[in-house]
Amino acid sequence: MTQTLTIPTSLEWHEDYLLILNQQKLPNTVEYIKLTNIEEYYDAIITLKVRGAPAIGITAAYGLAHAARQYETNDLAEFMDLFQRDKKYLAGSRPTAVNLVWALNRLENVLEHISSVNEAKTNLLHAAVQLHAEDEAVCRLIGEYGLSVLKDKQIVMTICNAGSIATSKYGTALAPFHLGREKGKAFQVYACETRPVLQGARLTAWELQQSGVDVTLITDSMAAHTMKERGVEAVIVGADRISANGDTANKIGTSMLAILCKHFNIPFYVAAPSSTFDLSIRNGNEIPIEERTREEITIVGGTLISPENVPVYNPAFDVTPHELITGIITEKGVLYPSFEESIQQSIG
Amino acid sequence: MTQTLTIPTSLEWHEDYLLILNQQKLPNTVEYIKLTNIEEYYDAIITLKVRGAPAIGITAAYGLAHAARQYETNDLAEFMDLFQRDKKYLAGSRPTAVNLVWALNRLENVLEHISSVNEAKTNLLHAAVQLHAEDEAVCRLIGEYGLSVLKDKQIVMTICNAGSIATSKYGTALAPFHLGREKGKAFQVYACETRPVLQGARLTAWELQQSGVDVTLITDSMAAHTMKERGVEAVIVGADRISANGDTANKIGTSMLAILCKHFNIPFYVAAPSSTFDLSIRNGNEIPIEERTREEITIVGGTLISPENVPVYNPAFDVTPHELITGIITEKGVLYPSFEESIQQSIG
Repeated sequence: MTQTLTIPTSLEWHEDYLLILNQQKLPNTVEYIKLTNIEEYYDAIITLKVRGAPAIGITAAYGLAHAARQYETNDLAEFMDLFQRDKKYLAGSRPTAVNLVWALNRLENVLEHISSVNEAKTNLLHAAVQLHAEDEAVCRLIGEYGLSVLKDKQIVMTICNAGSIATSKYGTALAPFHLGREKGKAFQVYACETRPVLQGARLTAWELQQSGVDVTLITDSMAAHTMKERGVEAVIVGADRISANGDTANKIGTSMLAILCKHFNIPFYVAAPSSTFDLSIRNGNEIPIEERTREEITIVGGTLISPENVPVYNPAFDVTPHELITGIITEKGVLYPSFEESIQQSIG
Repeated sequence: MTQTLTIPTSLEWHEDYLLILNQQKLPNTVEYIKLTNIEEYYDAIITLKVRGAPAIGITAAYGLAHAARQYETNDLAEFMDLFQRDKKYLAGSRPTAVNLVWALNRLENVLEHISSVNEAKTNLLHAAVQLHAEDEAVCRLIGEYGLSVLKDKQIVMTICNAGSIATSKYGTALAPFHLGREKGKAFQVYACETRPVLQGARLTAWELQQSGVDVTLITDSMAAHTMKERGVEAVIVGADRISANGDTANKIGTSMLAILCKHFNIPFYVAAPSSTFDLSIRNGNEIPIEERTREEITIVGGTLISPENVPVYNPAFDVTPHELITGIITEKGVLYPSFEESIQQSIG
């Protein structure tokens, strides 16, 4: 029996709907759902059916272009009012990921010199399609640059899912593994399960298996022990927002891995497209950290795993200080310290 | 309405059975079960119905004494053969906890100068009862010494459940919180949920709530962020085995906390009775680390949370190197570096 190995993707634009992989049902149910109105797009983002900063940006862009196409007006001023209302609505779906706002701004930009509602509608949809295509190219480049810092057969750890299904294709942190496999390289990947929402267990483990990458699942609590006992040689993670000095917001648990890497002298890489950089903020203290519902911690797979009324603290992200980052892998190359300078030169 | 706050306990010896709290069903079902034969004792330990190094030791001691009482022989040599067989059987239930072997050896010691099977049976049961009572006194002392290093109102983090229900009463790492509450002190405790088996979410959160201690539940991945953002001032953990140089085996995730403490300059305490020290081993490299079943990681509350066939790595414990430990709180006082010397003086 031969197994067909494919890199899974999560977004497909059709004429009247965006088809998305429902990531809440993975890994044991592979379900695709259609988004047809703005409330469905908003819901898909806020309930994590679609997740990952780039995929959120692309989905929101399609959502906004799609909604705009449905405005029943020929008055340009009224069109713009509706557009701004919906842009604000979608921007509020996830506060930490900067790609979301970046993508929505990209759409707004194509409305600058339009002269009719029809032209606006066409431009917006083209912009969303272009964003989608660009992201795949960007992820491929991130994968190539990632392969320039990781050596064949290395043992690498990751957290959350900065994967193909979090982007158009390939992913960011997982791009070197997918591309590496295409090129005959054999990484050994340890995927942290990534509590509370278990993106590592549900998504990264599944995605890498689909693609034929050697992946082993551990709990987040096993990261230190695994680094030491299994000889982890690099850690690579995605990012939701990177400030001007390189401080990086990413899934909760990321800063823990960075601190462990420093302790064990393991290189720690962030992989992210340049759209993840937010040069309007100087450092990580200014990044808003989304806190999510208590049930994400207290209920797993429908089962209550703690006393019902126990107080919880559920920050969805943390900030890894730039001092703990070895390099930031972007589509423009790998940035090294001092990040303030390399980011300014490359992204600014 | 006044709430009755009590420190839960988990072991109660009756004439014909040991009554244990089934910790696998906590926190949402409080079920006590009777152990009446050696297979039930073995099963209770291996399936984690009873857990925590001291409670395992006490349960095994009762189990061995109880089994011995059932031997149908008056021949002392035959009795000793059966005793050795059952001792070995129970010792194999959990390989990492040294209290288990220590407790079984304590029972063997009372057989040294016996002259009849009846005397042996009586001595063994007395030894188990004595072990049980001693443990409570030891835990109380650990709590008192713990209160000497923790200041009132401090924000303290812990992992797993080194609590009252892991011992006879009070616990080790949790003893200062229970005793502190009795004395009017108000600690703020952050309990790491402790994947994979969730002893923090299921047991520590429950136990501290029962006792009226202010406890907040976090996932293990949130430890670094919580230390920084919530100003954690100390970490206190239990131990399953401590080697002659102070290297400490405890629940997986413990060494992660110790490394984070070093990074954030937070004191890191181990709390354990002297029976946890194994001076026959020089350092942590010699401590066997139990690996447990894949289902502990892949199934939570009956739900499969990962691809069914994904490879997993499931070490149940890790070793915290002594360099990362601020102090070891025992019933004989708080031991400080150099541990090789302080352990030798106090325990040796």
